[in-house]
Amino acid sequence: MLNIKKPTLLLNSDICMKNIIAMASRAHKQKVFFRPHFKTHQSAAVSKWFRNEGVTAITVSSVSMAIYFARHGWQNITIAFPVNLLEIDEINQLASGINLNLLIESEEAAVFLARNLTSDCGFLIKIDTGYHRTGINPSNLPLIDQILEAADLAKLHFKGFLTHSGHTYHANGRSELLEIQQFASENLIRLKTHYQCRFPELMLSVGDTPSCSQLTVADGIDEIRPGNFVFFDVMQFALGSCTLEEIAVALICPVVAIHPNRLEAVIYGGAIHLSKEQIMLPPDPEAIFGLAISWDGKCWNTGNLLGKVSSLSQEHGIIKLTQAGCNLKPGDLVAILPVHSCLTADLIRKFYDLNGEVIETMNS
Amino acid sequence: MLNIKKPTLLLNSDICMKNIIAMASRAHKQKVFFRPHFKTHQSAAVSKWFRNEGVTAITVSSVSMAIYFARHGWQNITIAFPVNLLEIDEINQLASGINLNLLIESEEAAVFLARNLTSDCGFLIKIDTGYHRTGINPSNLPLIDQILEAADLAKLHFKGFLTHSGHTYHANGRSELLEIQQFASENLIRLKTHYQCRFPELMLSVGDTPSCSQLTVADGIDEIRPGNFVFFDVMQFALGSCTLEEIAVALICPVVAIHPNRLEAVIYGGAIHLSKEQIMLPPDPEAIFGLAISWDGKCWNTGNLLGKVSSLSQEHGIIKLTQAGCNLKPGDLVAILPVHSCLTADLIRKFYDLNGEVIETMNS
Repeated sequence: MLNIKKPTLLLNSDICMKNIIAMASRAHKQKVFFRPHFKTHQSAAVSKWFRNEGVTAITVSSVSMAIYFARHGWQNITIAFPVNLLEIDEINQLASGINLNLLIESEEAAVFLARNLTSDCGFLIKIDTGYHRTGINPSNLPLIDQILEAADLAKLHFKGFLTHSGHTYHANGRSELLEIQQFASENLIRLKTHYQCRFPELMLSVGDTPSCSQLTVADGIDEIRPGNFVFFDVMQFALGSCTLEEIAVALICPVVAIHPNRLEAVIYGGAIHLSKEQIMLPPDPEAIFGLAISWDGKCWNTGNLLGKVSSLSQEHGIIKLTQAGCNLKPGDLVAILPVHSCLTADLIRKFYDLNGEVIETMNS
Repeated sequence: MLNIKKPTLLLNSDICMKNIIAMASRAHKQKVFFRPHFKTHQSAAVSKWFRNEGVTAITVSSVSMAIYFARHGWQNITIAFPVNLLEIDEINQLASGINLNLLIESEEAAVFLARNLTSDCGFLIKIDTGYHRTGINPSNLPLIDQILEAADLAKLHFKGFLTHSGHTYHANGRSELLEIQQFASENLIRLKTHYQCRFPELMLSVGDTPSCSQLTVADGIDEIRPGNFVFFDVMQFALGSCTLEEIAVALICPVVAIHPNRLEAVIYGGAIHLSKEQIMLPPDPEAIFGLAISWDGKCWNTGNLLGKVSSLSQEHGIIKLTQAGCNLKPGDLVAILPVHSCLTADLIRKFYDLNGEVIETMNS
């Protein structure tokens, strides 16, 4: 039974399972391989729900996360993060036990791995298709060739090209989303065409939640790696990837003070719980850190908006109240839909289902 | 010995102890009671260094933090957060064992505590002196009287008025800082004068790091509660509260990719390590998430700026490199001075001294 006294992240497992089924079925219908990213939930318990939908291969964002999921039976893992050479011992340990894929984007990394890998290991080359966080420019064939050459004599097996079009998070509507997707897929397919003779099995992997939720996967793409859809959040809602009802997590927070003169409530729930991720929800001119809705002790109710989280300090949150929020008083609980569920789940580390059962994560 | 392979928060204990000694001595010289806030370090190990400087009473920001420090021998604790009525059982448990002070700012809270407290407990009334996060307007004597009346028959003992002038973090220079401090102290002193006949022992408590570090405490103020000074950070540096050399923590991060064409490095170290707290460092037009400096395996060097952290995603950080940063390559380590050390320390949970010894925290 739930007896919530302080900021507590709850997972509605029904919603979460529906989100998993929906994305697995989208991938199935479109005949692309589904390799979900597990960085959002980081939970062995949630990972079982994916297994029930036939998922056999996953994506993670760190060696530590790969170790955690390998320990929980996952045998095919891509670490979708530029390989951290300092963790070579852990990588060798992992590669000796499972099918591991690394991400390479420099000749130095390829040379280092060629010299230091002790077990067979797959790798993908990270391509920058416009996000400009990291990855190789798709026209930089000399660098790609250098990497392939450096890897050639080693235990490294080239699997294909991978991109993350993270700029879809800044897309202004569906047509811009489509433009980003087209640019990425055209560039990847050009690379596939160029290298397919030498590597007939090479595949193309893409995977941001906005485009995987909203668009049909482009022809020629072989694999998708969305992650956030498992929980969704206010950011995905703002981007049009989900409804508020499809958000599977909420942070339940005690109200500790009310300021009726400025229509504000203060909650116990701050930056260390929600993260300082913020978003604009037009037509509001101010960024918000979450949406406050009602919580009746068993369920949250997206139909009853109590306010918007307008600022956060370490443990305080300030809610700008709606008319419906004006009845709140100290000692009440409210549910906060987070702006970015990946960060909130990581910060909170341990969450619960609606029956009060702990859902363990790698950080619990 | 240090063998850093992934994002690791290091504490330079010499710098930290100097910061503690400096603030304790400022308080001593100014004849104000020093009740440091422990929310920045949240560590029993660091708390011992305060005890060595004669500190006997502390401030925390949650009931959980009070329980942790009470368990580590602290007998006089103020929870400087509007009292969370849902934790009444834990509060009763605490109040039965130590000298506990709560923060009240509503009649409901006073009535509830009067009915439900089972042990004697001190309380302070939270006054809003311009920050407008929470607290009572200092001119709202009727509400203060209601609280005092509601508390009168109970085990609640009125200790005085408390404020947190958090808007000093947005002060534009020393004169604005001084203005904020003067406004706060004038308002608090007016309250002291008004209530001193009934409560001859009542005290006034203030405590933000910018004003405690930079200004003389105003006459009539009895207690200071700064916290962040123990580590300092880039925000305090920007505010003029410390030099870069006085920052006691740095996040050591592996470099995983270099983009020479746009003078950027990618580090393993993101929002889940540093927090998304950002700050403007004029004349730069863009906000930053940390300063990257060199790390030689034993010490960080504030004299060797390698770049500025320009963006963060979950585990990636992007550094805009200086000329000195252009020699970095994948596999190198860099030190990041955090923008907000309280959040970084909370996120990381476990940190190490420069000899590689673990410094346990309440979240370790």
